[in-house]
Amino acid sequence: VATAREDQTGPVRPFAGEPVSAGAVLRVIRDAGTLTRAELGRRTGLARSTVAQRVDTLLRHELVREVVGGDSTGGRPPSSLAFNDGSGVVLCADLGVTHSRLAVCDLGGAPLAEEVEERLDISEGPEAVLGLVHERFGALMEQADRSHSHVRGIGVGVPGPVAFDRGEPTNPPIMPGWDGFSIPGWFASRYDAPVLVDNDVNIMALGEHWTNWRDRGHLLFIKVGTGIGCGIVARGEIHRGGKGAAGDIGHIRLAGHEVRCRCGNVGCLEAVSGGGALARRLSERGIEARTSRDVVRLVKDGDDAATRLVREAGRNLGEVLAGCVNFFNPEVIVIGGDVGQASSQLLAGVREIVFQRSLPLATEELRLVPSGLGDRAGVIGAAIMVIEHVLAPDAIDRAIRHAAA
Amino acid sequence: VATAREDQTGPVRPFAGEPVSAGAVLRVIRDAGTLTRAELGRRTGLARSTVAQRVDTLLRHELVREVVGGDSTGGRPPSSLAFNDGSGVVLCADLGVTHSRLAVCDLGGAPLAEEVEERLDISEGPEAVLGLVHERFGALMEQADRSHSHVRGIGVGVPGPVAFDRGEPTNPPIMPGWDGFSIPGWFASRYDAPVLVDNDVNIMALGEHWTNWRDRGHLLFIKVGTGIGCGIVARGEIHRGGKGAAGDIGHIRLAGHEVRCRCGNVGCLEAVSGGGALARRLSERGIEARTSRDVVRLVKDGDDAATRLVREAGRNLGEVLAGCVNFFNPEVIVIGGDVGQASSQLLAGVREIVFQRSLPLATEELRLVPSGLGDRAGVIGAAIMVIEHVLAPDAIDRAIRHAAA
Repeated sequence: VATAREDQTGPVRPFAGEPVSAGAVLRVIRDAGTLTRAELGRRTGLARSTVAQRVDTLLRHELVREVVGGDSTGGRPPSSLAFNDGSGVVLCADLGVTHSRLAVCDLGGAPLAEEVEERLDISEGPEAVLGLVHERFGALMEQADRSHSHVRGIGVGVPGPVAFDRGEPTNPPIMPGWDGFSIPGWFASRYDAPVLVDNDVNIMALGEHWTNWRDRGHLLFIKVGTGIGCGIVARGEIHRGGKGAAGDIGHIRLAGHEVRCRCGNVGCLEAVSGGGALARRLSERGIEARTSRDVVRLVKDGDDAATRLVREAGRNLGEVLAGCVNFFNPEVIVIGGDVGQASSQLLAGVREIVFQRSLPLATEELRLVPSGLGDRAGVIGAAIMVIEHVLAPDAIDRAIRHAAA
Repeated sequence: VATAREDQTGPVRPFAGEPVSAGAVLRVIRDAGTLTRAELGRRTGLARSTVAQRVDTLLRHELVREVVGGDSTGGRPPSSLAFNDGSGVVLCADLGVTHSRLAVCDLGGAPLAEEVEERLDISEGPEAVLGLVHERFGALMEQADRSHSHVRGIGVGVPGPVAFDRGEPTNPPIMPGWDGFSIPGWFASRYDAPVLVDNDVNIMALGEHWTNWRDRGHLLFIKVGTGIGCGIVARGEIHRGGKGAAGDIGHIRLAGHEVRCRCGNVGCLEAVSGGGALARRLSERGIEARTSRDVVRLVKDGDDAATRLVREAGRNLGEVLAGCVNFFNPEVIVIGGDVGQASSQLLAGVREIVFQRSLPLATEELRLVPSGLGDRAGVIGAAIMVIEHVLAPDAIDRAIRHAAA
């Protein structure tokens, strides 16, 4: 007798143009780490001759490499296959308001050269900013001993909403001159590689999920900096929503607060508890603080007022997140951003309220943790975004067909 | 030069065991409505002989049927193929607290026989309730002139949380005796067909999405009855979250309210604005109202106090939904449940606050509408849940292989 459970093995597979293509075989190898040809046959169900054919194709395109080792009961150890993550690089930029992080990463997402660029000022507009990014990409490639011909893709994160399918910022409040500017268009004359653009919290969520939580389907990444934003991973992928506006928790209303927000409403989480708001409240008390970084410095120096404010900000963030937990039931919430990372007080405040306010079933196995990647979540996420895009089975199969034609 | 956009055609396809299987061909036919063999060849990329083979298999299993018609420039019109939605039935039950709706539906989701069963009391426990459901399924099949052998699956919705993969209610607050009870297990000795179980708001969301909003990816279905719940559709599928607890918006805290809720917290949306709470508040004022249905009756009779309360309940629901809109950015919000459907005042209150409080980008194209299916959303959703399961390409291919063996 068939029951629901027995019947639900594995996801529904859409039809593919080719059964277990070279691209699909590469996916299996990447997921496994290393695999012998025999293991590859077992996992894909392919005949030995077909495995050999697919592997030859991938070897010829330098997408996999032979590694010696693996289990063997004697004689010559069987050679295994591994993804050749050195076969190309991706260029990544996590553009911030006042400073940015740039990197050249291999196809495994490991940075080969990396820098924080303080001269980048997003308000100078796309031509100036991307010009400097391009120049620094050149310098970083030189450091990493790689050239233009190695570039497989470019990933860019920006501090504002993005039309993801076009790679264009849309009405970004703090990016004058960028509205509707095609970032892929700008790079098109400079690199022969795909360019993907997303907002900063989405790439941070992606970086953190890929690096530390790949076994969980549903994750929220909360960035607490000058403002407050959220990147959402649902079933392992970024959830952008209907207009790409998902994750804007900074303007959810806090119970019992009437502070006016720059968005025109009152009581928004960001207007009460963002790093900018905390700095303003400290300076009103005569404590020198202009930015979220000043707040972080004060907390690190043990300033009492700053510490108390950050704890309260954690509780306020917790109020909003308690609602998100009831609504979305994430498995992991990662707290990042400069204020988010600076203080265990913020995280403690969040935990205090979320575990009090959310329903037991939703918090039973919820992990509420600081960012494991810290300042690098964005640049790693930008790398992962573009790597997953260029190494997707379809993209690999297209590239192989293209090379053969 | 490749840009992100050019490179992003179509979803990434996992590898399939068989290229464009009979199950996959059936999916194409179901999506299209009717298709000639030539059109089928164009859409799948299959050779004429392979199309013929796949179609023969589907005809042999009575999964498709020939329909005469279609475009023709003369001579005999080419015959088209359509899904044979009469080739089986699904049995559906939307179990409520005090009454339930049962139906026998064809494989297109159309009810062949349907009834509201007032004798079902969920608190009598699974054996009593399912016994009566089973008896009524038999009567409805007789009405519809179908027999046991036609049953392809059973879909059940229940008013509480469900472990979807096991079909078991988990700690349902208003379903004594059902905790951990295997509904598929109960039906296993009575029908040779898969049994799927989900909570009532999830199946309502599915029914409404499938019937009226299949072209949108992200939808929320809000049920306002005695309590308040939410079913979430993300990328066309039900989002259940880590523990299957997603959508529990009834216990999100409302700003400025301190009413104690049965969950132990204060100020929960449901404790302030659920149908049960509204009835209590009316009876405190000396107006006779014990249930959410009484509230609905009062509003329909033009009672002033009830109408004002429902409008206020709409605004309170709007406060919570404004947060969900900022967080999730849905394209559609459907308001249902008995209180939800009863009054344009509730919807007006929701709209008032959501369009004031949520960010412009998130509400620009947001549709906020009453349920199109009304009381039938659940039973239709239960049908869709099980139909999509049994007609999934993999399931069809397995069934065909099984029949051949």
